[in-house]
Amino acid sequence: AGSKRRNIWLDCDVGVDDAQALMLALSAPEVELVGVSAVHGNVGVTQVGRNIGRILTLCGRPEVPFFLGADEPLVAPSMDASYFHGEDGLGDRPDAFPPYSDVDLQSEPGHAAMHLAAAAQEHEGELTVVATGPLTNIALAAKVDEGFPQRVGRLIVMGGAEKEGNVTPTAEYNFHCDPESAHVVFRKFREVLLVSWECTLRHTLPAPWVAAWLAKPTAKARFMAAVMAKSLAYEQQRDAALEEGGDPAGGWNACDALAALLAVCNEALLEAEPRHCTVELQGANTRGMSVLQRPSAALPANTLLARKVCMQQYQRAMEAATD
Amino acid sequence: AGSKRRNIWLDCDVGVDDAQALMLALSAPEVELVGVSAVHGNVGVTQVGRNIGRILTLCGRPEVPFFLGADEPLVAPSMDASYFHGEDGLGDRPDAFPPYSDVDLQSEPGHAAMHLAAAAQEHEGELTVVATGPLTNIALAAKVDEGFPQRVGRLIVMGGAEKEGNVTPTAEYNFHCDPESAHVVFRKFREVLLVSWECTLRHTLPAPWVAAWLAKPTAKARFMAAVMAKSLAYEQQRDAALEEGGDPAGGWNACDALAALLAVCNEALLEAEPRHCTVELQGANTRGMSVLQRPSAALPANTLLARKVCMQQYQRAMEAATD
Amino acid sequence: AGSKRRNIWLDCDVGVDDAQALMLALSAPEVELVGVSAVHGNVGVTQVGRNIGRILTLCGRPEVPFFLGADEPLVAPSMDASYFHGEDGLGDRPDAFPPYSDVDLQSEPGHAAMHLAAAAQEHEGELTVVATGPLTNIALAAKVDEGFPQRVGRLIVMGGAEKEGNVTPTAEYNFHCDPESAHVVFRKFREVLLVSWECTLRHTLPAPWVAAWLAKPTAKARFMAAVMAKSLAYEQQRDAALEEGGDPAGGWNACDALAALLAVCNEALLEAEPRHCTVELQGANTRGMSVLQRPSAALPANTLLARKVCMQQYQRAMEAATD
Amino acid sequence: AGSKRRNIWLDCDVGVDDAQALMLALSAPEVELVGVSAVHGNVGVTQVGRNIGRILTLCGRPEVPFFLGADEPLVAPSMDASYFHGEDGLGDRPDAFPPYSDVDLQSEPGHAAMHLAAAAQEHEGELTVVATGPLTNIALAAKVDEGFPQRVGRLIVMGGAEKEGNVTPTAEYNFHCDPESAHVVFRKFREVLLVSWECTLRHTLPAPWVAAWLAKPTAKARFMAAVMAKSLAYEQQRDAALEEGGDPAGGWNACDALAALLAVCNEALLEAEPRHCTVELQGANTRGMSVLQRPSAALPANTLLARKVCMQQYQRAMEAATD
Ligand SMILES: [Ca+2]
Ligand SMILES: [Ca+2]
Ligand SMILES: [Ca+2]
Ligand SMILES: [Ca+2]
Repeated sequence: AGSKRRNIWLDCDVGVDDAQALMLALSAPEVELVGVSAVHGNVGVTQVGRNIGRILTLCGRPEVPFFLGADEPLVAPSMDASYFHGEDGLGDRPDAFPPYSDVDLQSEPGHAAMHLAAAAQEHEGELTVVATGPLTNIALAAKVDEGFPQRVGRLIVMGGAEKEGNVTPTAEYNFHCDPESAHVVFRKFREVLLVSWECTLRHTLPAPWVAAWLAKPTAKARFMAAVMAKSLAYEQQRDAALEEGGDPAGGWNACDALAALLAVCNEALLEAEPRHCTVELQGANTRGMSVLQRPSAALPANTLLARKVCMQQYQRAMEAATD
Repeated sequence: AGSKRRNIWLDCDVGVDDAQALMLALSAPEVELVGVSAVHGNVGVTQVGRNIGRILTLCGRPEVPFFLGADEPLVAPSMDASYFHGEDGLGDRPDAFPPYSDVDLQSEPGHAAMHLAAAAQEHEGELTVVATGPLTNIALAAKVDEGFPQRVGRLIVMGGAEKEGNVTPTAEYNFHCDPESAHVVFRKFREVLLVSWECTLRHTLPAPWVAAWLAKPTAKARFMAAVMAKSLAYEQQRDAALEEGGDPAGGWNACDALAALLAVCNEALLEAEPRHCTVELQGANTRGMSVLQRPSAALPANTLLARKVCMQQYQRAMEAATD
Repeated sequence: AGSKRRNIWLDCDVGVDDAQALMLALSAPEVELVGVSAVHGNVGVTQVGRNIGRILTLCGRPEVPFFLGADEPLVAPSMDASYFHGEDGLGDRPDAFPPYSDVDLQSEPGHAAMHLAAAAQEHEGELTVVATGPLTNIALAAKVDEGFPQRVGRLIVMGGAEKEGNVTPTAEYNFHCDPESAHVVFRKFREVLLVSWECTLRHTLPAPWVAAWLAKPTAKARFMAAVMAKSLAYEQQRDAALEEGGDPAGGWNACDALAALLAVCNEALLEAEPRHCTVELQGANTRGMSVLQRPSAALPANTLLARKVCMQQYQRAMEAATD
Repeated sequence: AGSKRRNIWLDCDVGVDDAQALMLALSAPEVELVGVSAVHGNVGVTQVGRNIGRILTLCGRPEVPFFLGADEPLVAPSMDASYFHGEDGLGDRPDAFPPYSDVDLQSEPGHAAMHLAAAAQEHEGELTVVATGPLTNIALAAKVDEGFPQRVGRLIVMGGAEKEGNVTPTAEYNFHCDPESAHVVFRKFREVLLVSWECTLRHTLPAPWVAAWLAKPTAKARFMAAVMAKSLAYEQQRDAALEEGGDPAGGWNACDALAALLAVCNEALLEAEPRHCTVELQGANTRGMSVLQRPSAALPANTLLARKVCMQQYQRAMEAATD
């Protein structure tokens, strides 16, 4: 029955692994992708919108509505991070099929935060929100609609670091981009399912699997191979330079897709632990740090920290994403 | 011709002097009060809404639309300041005419920030926004509609301190309540007309004038006398305790009404100076401080600091407010 | 030959485990304890001095010079932490042998930081400094004698946390007590051998071993049993209350003694890793945090992070301490 | 009788106006200059020491002992400010009489902070300390000798801003150079006589007076004319560029000499007000700000803020300095 379909909203800053998250969600059975929203991050929000339109075109899903949201953090000015994902966020292969010139899809008018808040009203208690970029849109939705945090059924966030950041010694990229929004989210939501930077490092897709995945004779696999080329080359270079850390055999950490998996397939979450999380706003070395503590009476759990995800289900879902 | 009327929006946290600001705006000739929005501050936003409804009832202006906005600061948790304005924000005289029980007016649905952004679209370049509470609604309107700051014709803010705060050594109440929103406003708007705490101290309404004003045989004057009683008593007690500072003969600083005057009567502004203003977010003693500098190439003017206001026009407008 | 003896200075805030560190150093062969200095921390500096005198009396070593140092942090006001170690820092057993009333030893005149700097001049390049309290004295020695950091042969510090603090979510006690001093130390010294909070947790002395150790028929063991009673009871209660973490069978983490072991017996250090360390001075949740990073060209190693210590040598040295 | 002589210690970062302060103190009747200490600031501490030796040579006072102190702030790394006072701190006229090559005087061994603390012990309650540079030496003396703040008879500090800084919007140079030391000083001393940046601006030596002063046919006046040339040219250029502020006719603000005057001639202080002062350590715009408040029970006065100084006595003392 249609009523059993899972309603999902994806808020993202596409971004290669956001693209993978979106393709995973589009291919998942029994999932209704209620909306997709763009947020600043890897690239500016306008480009994120173009990238969302391109993925929807690639996947033949023009009916999925998408929206532009915040083009800068809640309080601080923007940072720039185009070095990693390329200038267009998708590996700078504008010609790869579907080329930008073939993409007609347009974002809907109105700020994404308003549409997200409206969707949570329409699907009260039944909407899973997956956030794979800076949390500005989520925080804004909570600020312009105070009932929003309670109405969202589940909030799954890719972000934060348990011990060591990937941008600063203590801060992960998404939280570092907009610490105030991350702070607001953990203050307003009763429970965030958190897929941390370290969690994604523990769930690397092995290099041979990735090679086979990209070699599939499908349009989606060809597209993925094109947009990942730059990132893969960068990572190989970095791995060669590093003494330690990471899978020595390489592989791919599809951070955002791992979060999307938990939205479409709850059973894939094998282990998780309750935590209290707050996001540090100050400090010469600690702005944007996710401060995680074991819950106490004074600081009750507001976070479920994902520990272990089923690699079989993950790989199966990733397979489906490019079929 | 109606098209010459000045379009004004008042965002306030009523509050006795916000009530005076609203009554001043309602009584001003050639003014179209496009909307009134409530923000947290002196009391919670729901109570602010009730107070707006009560003033509109008192003034026989049920057609003016009003809206509820933010009930807490943009990022940090709320502070409480009910000690000064009384528990209901209007001197705790719920029985005074019109008693709360006689007020039927309801706020319009939807968040005030959205309605404010829509009003700025409708009256592009022709809307004067007066903000007499914490700047949360203004900041949110700028965040959910990036064109908002450019569309607003004028923004007049009561807030900030030039040298010494009234809540902390460095911070004025409205900015101290929500430093992040104030920070955002000065980062996004090209020019804020700022009525600082010290500016209001330089424009005290003399005690004899106030006494005569409250003694007028009108419903509005009687209401004002009732709701000001608590604050006047508090101030007299404080003045007696202070060694120095303030008008020795007492008097009343209607901070918010002074800002409203500049909205309805531009010519009342006799002197003002350009400044660069930013709002400090950190510091053991300086969070919420308005950091004012003479403009430079690196830090161009974003603020017009009100220096001198015409007391005749101020008193005339205040007279009209309670006629 | 006497010239081969290892010259050691112990800076401590006695404290039960500081007492164990001092007794360990006093009993170590081939060690010349050049001086002992007192710093604020578990108790005030005057009481720390009394406790040092008591231990020297217990161990029959009245010739060892000791000095009083800082009674408060470098910049901030003092904190209090008497809850754990008891009001006198040694488990509140003033009557246990040797009772305070029998202790005649007096600290030498002059600030400990000056004496420490002088000792480093006398034993240039040959002095090992062990710091088991807040780092105020060490920082002050570096400030009043700019050559001090280079003259010290080795600096071993018990302090800092690799992932989770024991006072705040991010800060360990010694660093939390005086973040500015810890910051200065890591800025001025080329290499600090750091025994972190987690390192001490990985080197718990097993409960049965502790029981046997305390049951020895010696004056030193009897003293130790008396002064540890309160802490052991507190820890048992806490362990019972905790869901997880720590050795389920209990045991004792003699944090400061572990650092002292590495001073007297270099070979006991089995594994260590170079790091860059800086100490965060700000943050709502991060003040006093030891920010550890893998070294880079921009941030070269200034820290050797102790990973693994030989438990046999540790237990043997602890045995000797109470023989 | 010699016992009536006023004992003065000058701590300075010479610096043209520090040189004026030193010359003023050397020429004052009934003053015993107990010691002079060098602190980092306008130039490095070694160069400050050379400059002190040069001034003592110029004034024929080789018997006055001087000492080198801190070469960097208490906690943070150094800043550089050689742009204003020239690379050698004295206008880069190494050849002017007496040239550096003729200066034989050497600083005494040992850190200035120790000597200062010893002097306060020797002259307990009778020593006036004048600090005209960053407060690092003063703070260190208070840290290595906890009785120091009580033993000092008077502490006169040139530093801090009442409203607007001269380095940042909120911070004056000396406090900005070492906020932590300034913070410590106001926390430890019962009363600091503070000569703020604004106070020095209110006591400008008029341009004609300065011209006559520099034209005197004395060696000291010739030296002064030489070392001031660069600063005077810089200030004329700046005044021409400024729209407003400062004496339109120019003139000279001998900030440090004004503080020295109050040490040698107590009656020159015509007006002063008690304040509570603390120094902000954080903030994007406020680090190093002197936060001044009217005293209260919670925050009692620790500062006497100089308001008005006798210009006649000031000019007379300055005359004597170059006679
Ligand atoms: Ca992303
Ligand atoms: Ca108000
Ligand atoms: Ca200790
Ligand atoms: Ca100076």
